[in-house]
Amino acid sequence: MKIVVDAMGGDFAPESVVAGVVEAVKEFDANIILVGIEEKVQAELKKHDYPQGRIEIIHAPTTVEMHEPATVSLRGKKDSSIAVGINLLKEDGFDAFVSAGNTGAVVAASTINLGMLNGVERPAIGLVIPTLKNFTFLIDVGANTDPKPEHLLQSALMAQVYTKEILGVDTPRVGLLNIGEEAGKGSGFAKEIYKMMEERVADFDGNVEASGIFKGEHDCIICDGVMGNIVIKISQGLMESAAALLRREISKSPIAMIGAVMMKSRLNHIKKLADYTEYGGAPLLGVNGIVMISHGRSNPKAIKNAIRATIREIEHDILRVMTERISRTTI
Amino acid sequence: MKIVVDAMGGDFAPESVVAGVVEAVKEFDANIILVGIEEKVQAELKKHDYPQGRIEIIHAPTTVEMHEPATVSLRGKKDSSIAVGINLLKEDGFDAFVSAGNTGAVVAASTINLGMLNGVERPAIGLVIPTLKNFTFLIDVGANTDPKPEHLLQSALMAQVYTKEILGVDTPRVGLLNIGEEAGKGSGFAKEIYKMMEERVADFDGNVEASGIFKGEHDCIICDGVMGNIVIKISQGLMESAAALLRREISKSPIAMIGAVMMKSRLNHIKKLADYTEYGGAPLLGVNGIVMISHGRSNPKAIKNAIRATIREIEHDILRVMTERISRTTI
Repeated sequence: MKIVVDAMGGDFAPESVVAGVVEAVKEFDANIILVGIEEKVQAELKKHDYPQGRIEIIHAPTTVEMHEPATVSLRGKKDSSIAVGINLLKEDGFDAFVSAGNTGAVVAASTINLGMLNGVERPAIGLVIPTLKNFTFLIDVGANTDPKPEHLLQSALMAQVYTKEILGVDTPRVGLLNIGEEAGKGSGFAKEIYKMMEERVADFDGNVEASGIFKGEHDCIICDGVMGNIVIKISQGLMESAAALLRREISKSPIAMIGAVMMKSRLNHIKKLADYTEYGGAPLLGVNGIVMISHGRSNPKAIKNAIRATIREIEHDILRVMTERISRTTI
Repeated sequence: MKIVVDAMGGDFAPESVVAGVVEAVKEFDANIILVGIEEKVQAELKKHDYPQGRIEIIHAPTTVEMHEPATVSLRGKKDSSIAVGINLLKEDGFDAFVSAGNTGAVVAASTINLGMLNGVERPAIGLVIPTLKNFTFLIDVGANTDPKPEHLLQSALMAQVYTKEILGVDTPRVGLLNIGEEAGKGSGFAKEIYKMMEERVADFDGNVEASGIFKGEHDCIICDGVMGNIVIKISQGLMESAAALLRREISKSPIAMIGAVMMKSRLNHIKKLADYTEYGGAPLLGVNGIVMISHGRSNPKAIKNAIRATIREIEHDILRVMTERISRTTI
């Protein structure tokens, strides 16, 4: 099993990425190909002990920066770590690609160079969100901002396969993110999707309101890329702002400061709620290859977890299972 | 000044509504007309002492339930407290209407019976959200799920008037809720709105990501009704789930329990972040009347605060100021 990892992706690259990769080869039965500026990656690798022959470097002279437009990986920087990494998947038969770099660039390079799975028209990014119960698989969190109803239907089918095969949910229940629970709520677009889902998705639970996501009562929640993106950014922003406010409040009272120390280990558990870096990566679904997008702020543990998630996808032959599932549902 | 209040609106009506109204007449210089089932409202009123002659009851025999479709106030239940209340505004020259009842029904009755302000095509609900700094006025949080770009432009202008006149911001800065900060991000619809805002809205700050809302760096944030609704429901759901998780975690450790007691007054401050019931009500803007929508779970304090907010709108002659502002901006 050979997994390609973008050594230059993310805010703490290549340091965090290389450290995560070293942990991964020690823990999992997979070899890693690090793609990036060879000299820099080599320098990081030298800081670590790891089983020889398990990590290889492939040189990619340029890097897509986080703020650059998505299309730069296709036009200006065809020799970037993202473009080279995706090509290795396509041309050289490697098994998966992991990147904590520019999400738009990874989506664009994957879509154009790998192409789509049979029966899927657009890519979608799924995200495993920790909830009060267990987790919810939210899709799409930002790949497709102008979807048609059938794209959301395809996402629902892919989400069911992913949560069943990879996350071990026996019969994944699907909800549609909407502004009210009753059928007939929401925009004209939402009503159209609802009808399509009701007809074609098994175990469809109807509309879900955003307030219910963190209760964890649905295995998969389907939405367009704009809504999904809002959900994760609101959650992130609110938890960060709440933490900042808590620190400010605590600092006003010595008694509260002592109380906070006594509660610390418990407060740390709260941070995990809605923390989508816990899973390590967000699978890019619909493209004809196993691609995992890690958060730009990924630490070594997140990179290692993202690699573990791709290993599961490879072991479960996820692309074949998804294609079969979609071909069984007439579209 | 005469303010009409829906006595039957909300999960704790008429009890909470009547209690809030009694507090309001003691504190503010406004008379209240309670609309609802006379017998029930009278029974609640008898429990309180209040200045005689300041609260009047007008009978409305039916009530729109929270789960009923919005149009019921227009067709089936024309004698509901919502329909009667809105008509009092239109026909009898009362100054404002406050309801914690079915939001959709209030929006529908207001739009159809009061009509729109000159230059405004669709209603929008604004919400004052407490943030780390001060507050942000988010609009629309659910009145218009299928807006055209010009509807969002009109919302932006109304939001600027509201935050200036009612909330006292000298030159309100406006942001557009989007999935990225750079111009050119987001859906085709988002790009179109961006362009329109850039050309026609003074003090336009460009795109805002959802993660930034609670930092409070924008006075007004504009979005469509679906996005706004997601924002408030996610925030509400996440804060509730975090609180539930915190209670669960604390109960596991006696030390943490003592710590929590020591922190209690500080933890209570955190609850106010993103708590949109703090302001008491959400102004329904764009209709030709002052209408305030309170949260379904409003307690007496929220009802009182909602009444105070409408008093400010009346004192500032907000409908005239908004109409003037919109007519100055060529649409």
